[in-house]
Amino acid sequence: MSNPRKTFHLNAFLMGVGHHEAAWRHPRTEEHRVLDVEHFRELGRIAERGTLDSVFFADGLAVGPRIKRNALAVFEPVTLLAAIATATTHVGLIATASTTYNEPFNLARKFASLDHISGGRAGWNIVTSGSEDEAFNFGYDAIPDHARRYERAQEFVDLAVRLWDSWESAAIVLDPETGIFADPDRVHTLDYSGERFRVRGPLNSPRSPQGRPLLVQAGSSESGKEFAARSAEAVFTAQRTIEEGQRFYRDLKSRLPRYGRSADDLKVLPGLVPFIADTEAQALALEQEFTDLISPDYALRQLSTLLGVDLTEHALDAPLPPLPAESEIEGGKSRFTLVKELAEKEELTVRQLIGKLGGGRGHRTLAGTPEQIADDLQAWFEAGAADGFNIMPPYLPGGLEDFVDRVVPILRERGLFRTEYTATTLRGHYGLEPVESQFAANEIAATA
Amino acid sequence: MSNPRKTFHLNAFLMGVGHHEAAWRHPRTEEHRVLDVEHFRELGRIAERGTLDSVFFADGLAVGPRIKRNALAVFEPVTLLAAIATATTHVGLIATASTTYNEPFNLARKFASLDHISGGRAGWNIVTSGSEDEAFNFGYDAIPDHARRYERAQEFVDLAVRLWDSWESAAIVLDPETGIFADPDRVHTLDYSGERFRVRGPLNSPRSPQGRPLLVQAGSSESGKEFAARSAEAVFTAQRTIEEGQRFYRDLKSRLPRYGRSADDLKVLPGLVPFIADTEAQALALEQEFTDLISPDYALRQLSTLLGVDLTEHALDAPLPPLPAESEIEGGKSRFTLVKELAEKEELTVRQLIGKLGGGRGHRTLAGTPEQIADDLQAWFEAGAADGFNIMPPYLPGGLEDFVDRVVPILRERGLFRTEYTATTLRGHYGLEPVESQFAANEIAATA
Repeated sequence: MSNPRKTFHLNAFLMGVGHHEAAWRHPRTEEHRVLDVEHFRELGRIAERGTLDSVFFADGLAVGPRIKRNALAVFEPVTLLAAIATATTHVGLIATASTTYNEPFNLARKFASLDHISGGRAGWNIVTSGSEDEAFNFGYDAIPDHARRYERAQEFVDLAVRLWDSWESAAIVLDPETGIFADPDRVHTLDYSGERFRVRGPLNSPRSPQGRPLLVQAGSSESGKEFAARSAEAVFTAQRTIEEGQRFYRDLKSRLPRYGRSADDLKVLPGLVPFIADTEAQALALEQEFTDLISPDYALRQLSTLLGVDLTEHALDAPLPPLPAESEIEGGKSRFTLVKELAEKEELTVRQLIGKLGGGRGHRTLAGTPEQIADDLQAWFEAGAADGFNIMPPYLPGGLEDFVDRVVPILRERGLFRTEYTATTLRGHYGLEPVESQFAANEIAATA
Repeated sequence: MSNPRKTFHLNAFLMGVGHHEAAWRHPRTEEHRVLDVEHFRELGRIAERGTLDSVFFADGLAVGPRIKRNALAVFEPVTLLAAIATATTHVGLIATASTTYNEPFNLARKFASLDHISGGRAGWNIVTSGSEDEAFNFGYDAIPDHARRYERAQEFVDLAVRLWDSWESAAIVLDPETGIFADPDRVHTLDYSGERFRVRGPLNSPRSPQGRPLLVQAGSSESGKEFAARSAEAVFTAQRTIEEGQRFYRDLKSRLPRYGRSADDLKVLPGLVPFIADTEAQALALEQEFTDLISPDYALRQLSTLLGVDLTEHALDAPLPPLPAESEIEGGKSRFTLVKELAEKEELTVRQLIGKLGGGRGHRTLAGTPEQIADDLQAWFEAGAADGFNIMPPYLPGGLEDFVDRVVPILRERGLFRTEYTATTLRGHYGLEPVESQFAANEIAATA
């Protein structure tokens, strides 16, 4: 069945001491390590031992309802990844950053710096910041309109690409004899003037090893999918069944030709929260231990934010109240719909829904033996529902170690995953070529 | 003469492969290391070997006239310092960042993250970005007005301090038993609404080890000095003679009582570019080697930018043309005046002026034996012209190694500089206490 040539991609999507919202309360974690940079450097090394494509960090620009009950992300992802870069040599480093609350020049420069620091391992998970809590930290009275956020994101990313392209790879001369540092003909002023931004350029960073970071996107709304089809190289997505995964996969890939792109140019990577144990029963028992540690009052506030409806006074053993239509949601549309449909389809009470969401806030949870986890990933991959996966360990570092040391060897044996790195850059791990500047003339090779 | 109790402060102010603008052309440097993060991590380790207070990086948000002839700063300082943090354990890490072209929430968070990553070693050199090239990268048609830049800087810093203070040090509870992550009564919503910013808060980062980064300022104009007197804990300044240094020192210290601060609350740190050799003649010859490598056409463009006057067609062996008054300058006022007065007082031709500026763009250069350098620093310190110094090695890593291995031992012997670190934080090196949140109630110690 398996094709020995086609392998898949695996990112370690990491959060604090684990993705499960009660991870820090479980004896398998040391709660104080949420504050310890060495914990995260160690996670980078574990991911690298498993030849994973990358470690990946989410981000938000507000505390939200997490203060009392849930472990906050302590570190800003790009600075954290700079610290992880120096503990590793191959694993990719993907940071989430917002196009709504940053300046293109600063953000393009920050990722160029991470790419220089890591020798070409930077990736940018592009988000538009859909929460009210974030809006209030940047002078807004409400979430900026969903459509306008995506319009800004598109202009922002196009401009960021131009900024990265403002330096051709051959621009740096560094000739002590002649005293020429850079070739001014290969460093480009942009004089960009668009609807939202005016930037002269060039960027104050020579072209980085990858040319530009891997561009990743995580929204699965209509605007999100169109944005991804045009600009992203990988999509992180929450899909709960193979059928839904296949539908999403086909949908996304079918949008690519419109932008002159082929199916391989965009990898689709659903999330999975794996509970791994020697037997399925043990894995299920482990999952239950974590579910039992969820604080219902915290989870209700979290769910309220996710759905944009106040559920804090709602009965735990009743179903969800009637919810608005997706079109009325200005926050994260696709996650809203995923949770709403999950609750309706499986006729869940709020308490049951909270349990289902505890592991990965809507991402799929799977408890099983290493073989069962490997079977599941293989099935999704071969059914055309995924090009790879974001592995979201429910507790850390143990959950990542179990995946790397027990599941990865099975995937390797089946020819589904690399046995060693064949590239040193994140783009390389994804099978993508280094990118030359759009402003480079064709005769570069001749004059280099 | 020397008081064994009063010691001074030393920062390594680092730039590429050296502060001298022709450093990368000299055989004592390897020019490609401007692109190599390991070079900078090594510099951090050398500074730490010398028990220096910090390593410090300047920053600008544009390429400016540097493309062809001068080595560009490749890395964004905060990400670079995150990488240096993991190679060191004690040395402070000071990054320059602009209040004109950042959002307070993002910047406060970035420095909190660096402080967490480094275990309390972050410092922020606050600048207002006075160049036209920077303005053009952020949607402006001209440099924002000098006075308004400083007004924004003041509001920005006050707000950043509030954001850092939004978490009390006792806010993190992390009790797995009760499931309490943080005490919401010790995490403060700000609901800040000022002239330029509206930010709800709290910051999405628990209080960092230092509470807040060391606040540093580098402008010496009237607005700059007043800003420093109110908000900074260290001032980096260019002073060319002991008398000028004393005048500046007294001026700055005399402003502190107005803000309820004492002389020790603000350290004055002039820059020095040392050329070190076994004999004075060798040191002078070494300096001359670097001067001879300056490209006059590059230097003219650099000088034009610094003075806001186009000198690119000006005769090298003529004096400067008439210059505008400082009040007409919207860029860096104090550096403008320093260079203007230097040229007038010493009756320099443009060529001579360029040579004088080559080492440190207006900072003082001194060529001598290790003893002569130590004597000079001691004289400034004991004359009340400095609380310490920013050492700006003209070439790297050699110039820093020479200072650390040859000058620092003399200073230690004279009781002028620490022989080992007595603190693990940058504030500690500067003799400052950790800062508690302004919102903390007084009974914290009792309830901790």
